[in-house]
Amino acid sequence: MDENYDGRALQRLLDELGRLPGIGPKSAQRIAYHILGADVEEARRLAQAILDVKSLVHFCPVCFNYATRERCDICEDPTRDQATICVVSEPRDVTAIERTGTYHGLYHVLGGVISPMDKIGPEQLHVRELLQRLADGQVSEVILATNPDVEGETTATYLSRTIKPLGISVSRLASGLPVGGDLEFADEVTLGRAIEARRTL
Amino acid sequence: MDENYDGRALQRLLDELGRLPGIGPKSAQRIAYHILGADVEEARRLAQAILDVKSLVHFCPVCFNYATRERCDICEDPTRDQATICVVSEPRDVTAIERTGTYHGLYHVLGGVISPMDKIGPEQLHVRELLQRLADGQVSEVILATNPDVEGETTATYLSRTIKPLGISVSRLASGLPVGGDLEFADEVTLGRAIEARRTL
Repeated sequence: MDENYDGRALQRLLDELGRLPGIGPKSAQRIAYHILGADVEEARRLAQAILDVKSLVHFCPVCFNYATRERCDICEDPTRDQATICVVSEPRDVTAIERTGTYHGLYHVLGGVISPMDKIGPEQLHVRELLQRLADGQVSEVILATNPDVEGETTATYLSRTIKPLGISVSRLASGLPVGGDLEFADEVTLGRAIEARRTL
Repeated sequence: MDENYDGRALQRLLDELGRLPGIGPKSAQRIAYHILGADVEEARRLAQAILDVKSLVHFCPVCFNYATRERCDICEDPTRDQATICVVSEPRDVTAIERTGTYHGLYHVLGGVISPMDKIGPEQLHVRELLQRLADGQVSEVILATNPDVEGETTATYLSRTIKPLGISVSRLASGLPVGGDLEFADEVTLGRAIEARRTL
Protein backbone atom coordinates (compact mmCIF):
# COMPACT_ATOMS: atom_id res chain seq x y z
CA MET A 1 0.00 0.00 0.00
CA ASP A 2 1.14 3.49 -1.00
CA GLU A 3 2.58 5.33 2.03
CA ASN A 4 0.39 8.35 1.29
CA TYR A 5 -2.74 6.19 1.25
CA ASP A 6 -3.82 7.42 4.69
CA GLY A 7 -3.02 11.04 3.98
CA ARG A 8 -5.14 11.09 0.86
CA ALA A 9 -8.22 9.44 2.42
CA LEU A 10 -10.37 12.56 2.05
CA GLN A 11 -9.13 13.24 -1.48
CA ARG A 12 -9.87 9.65 -2.50
CA LEU A 13 -13.42 9.96 -1.20
CA LEU A 14 -13.85 13.23 -3.11
CA ASP A 15 -12.53 11.55 -6.27
CA GLU A 16 -14.83 8.55 -5.92
CA LEU A 17 -17.89 10.68 -5.15
CA GLY A 18 -17.07 12.88 -8.13
CA ARG A 19 -17.45 9.86 -10.45
CA LEU A 20 -21.13 9.52 -9.52
CA PRO A 21 -23.69 11.02 -11.90
CA GLY A 22 -24.85 14.52 -11.02
CA ILE A 23 -22.18 14.97 -8.32
CA GLY A 24 -19.86 17.88 -9.07
CA PRO A 25 -16.87 18.95 -6.95
CA LYS A 26 -19.03 21.07 -4.59
CA SER A 27 -21.59 18.30 -3.99
CA ALA A 28 -18.78 15.78 -3.49
CA GLN A 29 -17.26 18.06 -0.87
CA ARG A 30 -20.56 18.57 0.92
CA ILE A 31 -21.19 14.82 0.98
CA ALA A 32 -17.63 14.02 2.08
CA TYR A 33 -17.87 16.46 5.00
CA HIS A 34 -21.26 15.02 5.88
CA ILE A 35 -19.72 11.53 6.02
CA LEU A 36 -16.78 12.83 8.07
CA GLY A 37 -19.17 14.39 10.56
CA ALA A 38 -21.66 11.50 10.55
CA ASP A 39 -21.99 8.64 12.95
CA VAL A 40 -19.55 5.84 12.07
CA GLU A 41 -22.53 3.45 11.87
CA GLU A 42 -24.20 5.59 9.20
CA ALA A 43 -21.00 5.55 7.14
CA ARG A 44 -20.74 1.76 7.54
CA ARG A 45 -24.34 1.24 6.46
CA LEU A 46 -23.76 3.34 3.33
CA ALA A 47 -20.56 1.47 2.44
CA GLN A 48 -22.26 -1.88 3.08
CA ALA A 49 -25.30 -0.92 1.00
CA ILE A 50 -22.97 -0.10 -1.91
CA LEU A 51 -21.19 -3.46 -1.60
CA ASP A 52 -24.48 -5.32 -1.15
CA VAL A 53 -26.10 -4.08 -4.34
CA LYS A 54 -23.04 -5.28 -6.23
CA SER A 55 -22.94 -8.70 -4.57
CA LEU A 56 -26.66 -9.39 -4.09
CA VAL A 57 -28.29 -7.77 -7.11
CA HIS A 58 -28.07 -9.39 -10.56
CA PHE A 59 -30.14 -9.44 -13.74
CA CYS A 60 -33.38 -11.43 -13.80
CA PRO A 61 -32.85 -14.19 -16.43
CA VAL A 62 -36.43 -13.71 -17.68
CA CYS A 63 -36.94 -9.95 -18.01
CA PHE A 64 -33.42 -8.54 -17.33
CA ASN A 65 -34.64 -6.23 -14.59
CA TYR A 66 -32.52 -6.16 -11.43
CA ALA A 67 -33.23 -9.10 -9.12
CA THR A 68 -32.05 -10.26 -5.72
CA ARG A 69 -33.73 -13.67 -5.80
CA GLU A 70 -33.35 -16.02 -8.79
CA ARG A 71 -35.97 -14.07 -10.73
CA CYS A 72 -37.05 -10.48 -10.08
CA ASP A 73 -39.96 -9.64 -7.78
CA ILE A 74 -42.26 -8.85 -10.71
CA CYS A 75 -41.57 -12.08 -12.63
CA GLU A 76 -42.01 -14.00 -9.34
CA ASP A 77 -45.39 -12.38 -8.63
CA PRO A 78 -48.24 -14.66 -9.84
CA THR A 79 -50.80 -11.88 -9.40
CA ARG A 80 -49.26 -9.82 -12.23
CA ASP A 81 -51.03 -10.00 -15.59
CA GLN A 82 -48.96 -12.64 -17.44
CA ALA A 83 -50.50 -11.73 -20.81
CA THR A 84 -48.97 -8.24 -21.07
CA ILE A 85 -45.32 -7.32 -21.41
CA CYS A 86 -44.10 -3.75 -21.19
CA VAL A 87 -40.78 -3.33 -23.04
CA VAL A 88 -38.41 -0.72 -21.63
CA SER A 89 -34.84 0.31 -22.25
CA GLU A 90 -33.39 0.27 -18.72
CA PRO A 91 -34.27 -1.10 -15.24
CA ARG A 92 -34.84 2.47 -14.02
CA ASP A 93 -37.76 2.71 -16.49
CA VAL A 94 -39.40 -0.23 -14.68
CA THR A 95 -39.13 1.74 -11.43
CA ALA A 96 -40.67 4.80 -13.09
CA ILE A 97 -43.64 2.84 -14.47
CA GLU A 98 -44.14 0.89 -11.22
CA ARG A 99 -44.34 4.20 -9.38
CA THR A 100 -47.41 5.19 -11.42
CA GLY A 101 -49.33 2.19 -10.02
CA THR A 102 -51.28 1.95 -13.28
CA TYR A 103 -49.55 -1.07 -14.84
CA HIS A 104 -49.98 -4.62 -13.57
CA GLY A 105 -48.35 -6.75 -16.28
CA LEU A 106 -44.79 -8.00 -16.77
CA TYR A 107 -41.73 -6.20 -18.13
CA HIS A 108 -38.87 -6.84 -20.50
CA VAL A 109 -35.73 -4.72 -20.17
CA LEU A 110 -33.85 -4.38 -23.45
CA GLY A 111 -30.64 -3.11 -21.86
CA GLY A 112 -30.45 -0.14 -24.23
CA VAL A 113 -31.92 1.08 -27.51
CA ILE A 114 -31.06 0.57 -31.16
CA SER A 115 -28.41 3.15 -32.02
CA PRO A 116 -26.49 2.69 -35.28
CA MET A 117 -24.17 5.54 -34.23
CA ASP A 118 -23.04 3.53 -31.19
CA LYS A 119 -23.10 0.26 -33.18
CA ILE A 120 -25.99 -1.05 -31.08
CA GLY A 121 -28.41 -3.18 -33.07
CA PRO A 122 -31.10 -5.66 -31.95
CA GLU A 123 -28.38 -8.32 -31.43
CA GLN A 124 -26.77 -6.21 -28.70
CA LEU A 125 -30.11 -5.91 -26.85
CA HIS A 126 -32.29 -8.56 -25.16
CA VAL A 127 -34.54 -8.79 -28.24
CA ARG A 128 -33.97 -12.50 -28.89
CA GLU A 129 -35.03 -13.29 -25.31
CA LEU A 130 -38.16 -11.13 -25.76
CA LEU A 131 -39.14 -13.08 -28.90
CA GLN A 132 -38.57 -16.34 -26.98
CA ARG A 133 -40.95 -15.13 -24.26
CA LEU A 134 -43.57 -14.34 -26.93
CA ALA A 135 -43.19 -17.74 -28.64
CA ASP A 136 -45.41 -19.73 -26.26
CA GLY A 137 -48.57 -17.77 -27.10
CA GLN A 138 -49.31 -16.66 -23.50
CA VAL A 139 -48.74 -12.98 -24.23
CA SER A 140 -51.50 -11.03 -25.98
CA GLU A 141 -50.14 -7.47 -25.77
CA VAL A 142 -46.72 -5.86 -25.89
CA ILE A 143 -46.45 -2.21 -24.77
CA LEU A 144 -43.41 -0.47 -26.24
CA ALA A 145 -42.28 1.99 -23.56
CA THR A 146 -38.96 3.15 -24.95
CA ASN A 147 -38.31 6.89 -24.70
CA PRO A 148 -40.08 9.22 -27.17
CA ASP A 149 -36.76 10.23 -28.76
CA VAL A 150 -35.12 9.23 -32.06
CA GLU A 151 -33.48 6.05 -30.77
CA GLY A 152 -36.48 5.05 -28.67
CA GLU A 153 -38.78 5.51 -31.66
CA THR A 154 -36.43 3.55 -33.93
CA THR A 155 -36.35 0.71 -31.41
CA ALA A 156 -40.15 0.77 -31.04
CA THR A 157 -40.63 0.72 -34.83
CA TYR A 158 -38.25 -2.21 -35.20
CA LEU A 159 -39.94 -4.20 -32.42
CA SER A 160 -43.41 -3.37 -33.70
CA ARG A 161 -42.54 -4.73 -37.16
CA THR A 162 -41.03 -7.86 -35.62
CA ILE A 163 -43.82 -8.60 -33.11
CA LYS A 164 -47.02 -7.70 -35.03
CA PRO A 165 -46.62 -10.61 -37.52
CA LEU A 166 -46.79 -12.96 -34.48
CA GLY A 167 -50.44 -11.91 -34.05
CA ILE A 168 -49.70 -10.04 -30.81
CA SER A 169 -51.21 -6.61 -30.14
CA VAL A 170 -48.48 -3.94 -30.01
CA SER A 171 -48.99 -0.52 -28.39
CA ARG A 172 -46.87 2.53 -27.65
CA LEU A 173 -47.04 4.98 -24.74
CA ALA A 174 -49.04 8.10 -25.62
CA SER A 175 -47.14 11.29 -26.40
CA GLY A 176 -48.67 14.63 -25.50
CA LEU A 177 -48.59 17.50 -23.06
CA PRO A 178 -47.26 16.67 -19.58
CA VAL A 179 -50.05 16.72 -17.01
CA GLY A 180 -49.83 19.99 -15.10
CA GLY A 181 -47.64 21.37 -17.88
CA ASP A 182 -48.19 24.69 -19.59
CA LEU A 183 -49.25 24.66 -23.25
CA GLU A 184 -47.34 27.88 -23.83
CA PHE A 185 -44.06 26.28 -22.79
CA ALA A 186 -44.49 22.93 -24.59
CA ASP A 187 -42.04 22.33 -27.43
CA GLU A 188 -43.49 22.30 -30.96
CA VAL A 189 -43.06 18.56 -31.47
CA THR A 190 -44.85 17.67 -28.23
CA LEU A 191 -47.65 20.15 -28.92
CA GLY A 192 -47.98 18.83 -32.50
CA ARG A 193 -48.26 15.27 -31.16
CA ALA A 194 -50.85 16.38 -28.62
CA ILE A 195 -52.96 17.90 -31.39
CA GLU A 196 -52.65 14.83 -33.65
CA ALA A 197 -53.51 12.48 -30.80
CA ARG A 198 -56.41 14.63 -29.52
CA ARG A 199 -59.24 12.76 -27.78
CA THR A 200 -62.91 13.22 -28.63
CA LEU A 201 -64.79 14.28 -25.50
CA MET B 1 -29.94 -11.08 9.65
CA ASP B 2 -33.45 -10.20 8.47
CA GLU B 3 -34.56 -12.66 5.77
CA ASN B 4 -35.54 -9.82 3.48
CA TYR B 5 -32.09 -8.25 3.83
CA ASP B 6 -31.05 -9.43 0.36
CA GLY B 7 -34.32 -8.49 -1.27
CA ARG B 8 -34.12 -4.94 -0.05
CA ALA B 9 -30.50 -4.34 -1.08
CA LEU B 10 -31.44 -1.73 -3.67
CA GLN B 11 -33.96 -0.04 -1.36
CA ARG B 12 -31.38 0.11 1.43
CA LEU B 13 -28.90 1.79 -0.90
CA LEU B 14 -31.58 4.30 -1.96
CA ASP B 15 -32.36 4.99 1.71
CA GLU B 16 -28.71 5.48 2.64
CA LEU B 17 -27.99 7.70 -0.36
CA GLY B 18 -31.10 9.74 0.46
CA ARG B 19 -29.59 10.64 3.84
CA LEU B 20 -26.70 12.49 2.15
CA PRO B 21 -26.98 16.27 1.84
CA GLY B 22 -28.35 17.51 -1.47
CA ILE B 23 -29.39 14.02 -2.60
CA GLY B 24 -33.14 13.73 -3.22
CA PRO B 25 -35.01 10.58 -4.28
CA LYS B 26 -34.27 11.13 -7.99
CA SER B 27 -30.55 11.71 -7.47
CA ALA B 28 -30.40 8.70 -5.14
CA GLN B 29 -31.98 6.57 -7.84
CA ARG B 30 -29.63 7.83 -10.54
CA ILE B 31 -26.63 7.15 -8.31
CA ALA B 32 -27.91 3.71 -7.25
CA TYR B 33 -28.41 2.66 -10.87
CA HIS B 34 -24.98 4.01 -11.71
CA ILE B 35 -23.47 1.86 -8.95
CA LEU B 36 -25.49 -1.16 -10.12
CA GLY B 37 -24.19 -0.70 -13.63
CA ALA B 38 -20.63 0.20 -12.62
CA ASP B 39 -17.58 -1.99 -12.45
CA VAL B 40 -17.48 -3.92 -9.14
CA GLU B 41 -14.03 -2.41 -8.50
CA GLU B 42 -15.40 1.13 -8.74
CA ALA B 43 -18.11 0.28 -6.19
CA ARG B 44 -15.51 -1.29 -3.87
CA ARG B 45 -13.28 1.77 -4.11
CA LEU B 46 -16.19 4.05 -3.21
CA ALA B 47 -17.22 1.89 -0.24
CA GLN B 48 -13.60 1.67 0.95
CA ALA B 49 -13.10 5.43 0.61
CA ILE B 50 -16.16 5.98 2.82
CA LEU B 51 -14.85 3.56 5.47
CA ASP B 52 -11.33 5.01 5.24
CA VAL B 53 -12.32 8.61 5.95
CA LYS B 54 -14.06 7.38 9.08
CA SER B 55 -11.16 5.24 10.29
CA LEU B 56 -8.18 7.31 9.10
CA VAL B 57 -9.34 10.90 9.48
CA HIS B 58 -9.60 12.57 12.89
CA PHE B 59 -9.42 16.10 14.30
CA CYS B 60 -6.05 17.84 14.52
CA PRO B 61 -5.42 18.42 18.27
CA VAL B 62 -3.97 21.88 17.52
CA CYS B 63 -6.39 23.51 15.07
CA PHE B 64 -9.32 21.00 14.92
CA ASN B 65 -9.16 20.73 11.15
CA TYR B 66 -9.38 17.18 9.77
CA ALA B 67 -6.06 15.34 9.95
CA THR B 68 -4.77 11.93 8.90
CA ARG B 69 -1.39 12.19 10.61
CA GLU B 70 -1.05 13.24 14.26
CA ARG B 71 -1.50 16.90 13.35
CA CYS B 72 -3.07 18.26 10.14
CA ASP B 73 -1.01 19.00 7.03
CA ILE B 74 -1.19 22.76 7.63
CA CYS B 75 -0.07 22.62 11.29
CA GLU B 76 2.72 20.23 10.23
CA ASP B 77 3.95 22.57 7.50
CA PRO B 78 6.88 24.71 8.81
CA THR B 79 6.69 27.02 5.76
CA ARG B 80 3.28 28.39 6.80
CA ASP B 81 3.30 31.78 8.53
CA GLN B 82 3.16 30.79 12.23
CA ALA B 83 2.26 34.32 13.33
CA THR B 84 -1.20 34.42 11.71
CA ILE B 85 -4.24 32.33 12.62
CA CYS B 86 -7.41 32.37 10.53
CA VAL B 87 -10.42 31.38 12.65
CA VAL B 88 -13.20 29.53 10.81
CA SER B 89 -16.37 27.73 11.80
CA GLU B 90 -15.95 24.38 10.00
CA PRO B 91 -13.19 22.34 8.30
CA ARG B 92 -14.88 22.96 4.93
CA ASP B 93 -14.11 26.67 5.38
CA VAL B 94 -10.41 25.80 5.54
CA THR B 95 -10.76 24.03 2.20
CA ALA B 96 -12.53 27.07 0.71
CA ILE B 97 -9.82 29.48 1.88
CA GLU B 98 -6.97 27.17 0.87
CA ARG B 99 -8.48 27.02 -2.63
CA THR B 100 -7.99 30.77 -3.01
CA GLY B 101 -4.23 30.36 -2.63
CA THR B 102 -4.03 33.80 -1.00
CA TYR B 103 -3.57 32.77 2.63
CA HIS B 104 -0.39 31.24 4.01
CA GLY B 105 -0.90 31.27 7.77
CA LEU B 106 -2.41 28.74 10.18
CA TYR B 107 -6.06 28.00 10.97
CA HIS B 108 -8.25 27.38 13.97
CA VAL B 109 -11.55 25.56 13.46
CA LEU B 110 -14.16 26.49 16.06
CA GLY B 111 -16.45 23.57 15.28
CA GLY B 112 -19.50 25.83 14.94
CA VAL B 113 -20.61 29.35 15.80
CA ILE B 114 -22.11 30.99 18.85
CA SER B 115 -25.86 30.43 18.66
CA PRO B 116 -27.92 31.09 21.79
CA MET B 117 -30.97 29.58 20.03
CA ASP B 118 -29.15 26.23 19.76
CA LYS B 119 -27.57 26.67 23.19
CA ILE B 120 -24.10 26.94 21.67
CA GLY B 121 -21.85 29.35 23.53
CA PRO B 122 -18.05 29.78 23.50
CA GLU B 123 -17.71 26.78 25.88
CA GLN B 124 -19.19 24.46 23.22
CA LEU B 125 -16.65 25.69 20.63
CA HIS B 126 -12.85 25.35 20.50
CA VAL B 127 -12.40 28.88 21.88
CA ARG B 128 -10.43 27.85 24.98
CA GLU B 129 -7.92 26.02 22.76
CA LEU B 130 -7.63 29.12 20.54
CA LEU B 131 -6.82 31.31 23.55
CA GLN B 132 -4.21 28.74 24.64
CA ARG B 133 -2.57 28.97 21.22
CA LEU B 134 -2.47 32.75 21.53
CA ALA B 135 -0.97 32.66 25.05
CA ASP B 136 2.67 32.09 24.03
CA GLY B 137 2.94 35.41 22.17
CA GLN B 138 3.95 33.87 18.78
CA VAL B 139 0.77 35.00 17.02
CA SER B 140 0.52 38.62 15.92
CA GLU B 141 -2.74 38.54 13.88
CA VAL B 142 -6.02 36.67 14.11
CA ILE B 143 -8.31 36.80 11.05
CA LEU B 144 -11.95 36.11 11.94
CA ALA B 145 -13.38 34.26 8.94
CA THR B 146 -16.75 33.17 10.27
CA ASN B 147 -19.66 33.63 7.85
CA PRO B 148 -21.06 37.14 7.32
CA ASP B 149 -24.42 36.13 8.88
CA VAL B 150 -25.93 36.86 12.30
CA GLU B 151 -24.27 33.98 14.13
CA GLY B 152 -20.96 34.41 12.34
CA GLU B 153 -20.93 38.12 13.20
CA THR B 154 -21.87 37.41 16.83
CA THR B 155 -19.03 34.91 17.07
CA ALA B 156 -16.58 37.34 15.45
CA THR B 157 -17.62 40.15 17.79
CA TYR B 158 -17.20 37.89 20.84
CA LEU B 159 -13.76 36.69 19.71
CA SER B 160 -12.64 40.20 18.79
CA ARG B 161 -13.50 41.46 22.28
CA THR B 162 -11.71 38.51 23.87
CA ILE B 163 -8.56 38.61 21.73
CA LYS B 164 -7.89 42.36 21.27
CA PRO B 165 -7.03 42.87 24.98
CA LEU B 166 -4.18 40.35 24.47
CA GLY B 167 -2.50 42.91 22.20
CA ILE B 168 -3.05 40.80 19.09
CA SER B 169 -4.25 42.40 15.85
CA VAL B 170 -7.75 41.15 14.94
CA SER B 171 -9.23 41.42 11.44
CA ARG B 172 -12.40 40.30 9.67
CA LEU B 173 -12.92 39.21 6.06
CA ALA B 174 -14.18 42.05 3.87
CA SER B 175 -17.87 42.10 2.97
CA GLY B 176 -18.96 43.50 -0.38
CA LEU B 177 -20.12 42.64 -3.86
CA PRO B 178 -19.09 39.22 -5.12
CA VAL B 179 -16.46 39.51 -7.85
CA GLY B 180 -18.20 39.03 -11.21
CA GLY B 181 -21.53 39.68 -9.50
CA ASP B 182 -24.13 42.12 -10.75
CA LEU B 183 -24.81 45.24 -8.66
CA GLU B 184 -28.45 45.16 -9.74
CA PHE B 185 -28.97 41.73 -8.21
CA ALA B 186 -27.03 42.27 -4.97
CA ASP B 187 -29.17 42.25 -1.82
CA GLU B 188 -29.53 45.57 0.03
CA VAL B 189 -27.36 44.55 2.97
CA THR B 190 -24.47 43.44 0.78
CA LEU B 191 -24.74 46.55 -1.36
CA GLY B 192 -24.92 48.73 1.77
CA ARG B 193 -21.77 47.08 3.14
CA ALA B 194 -20.03 47.55 -0.21
CA ILE B 195 -20.82 51.28 -0.11
CA GLU B 196 -19.70 51.68 3.53
CA ALA B 197 -16.48 49.77 2.89
CA ARG B 198 -15.71 51.59 -0.40
CA ARG B 199 -12.02 51.89 -1.30
CA THR B 200 -10.40 55.16 -2.33
CA LEU B 201 -8.81 54.73 -5.75
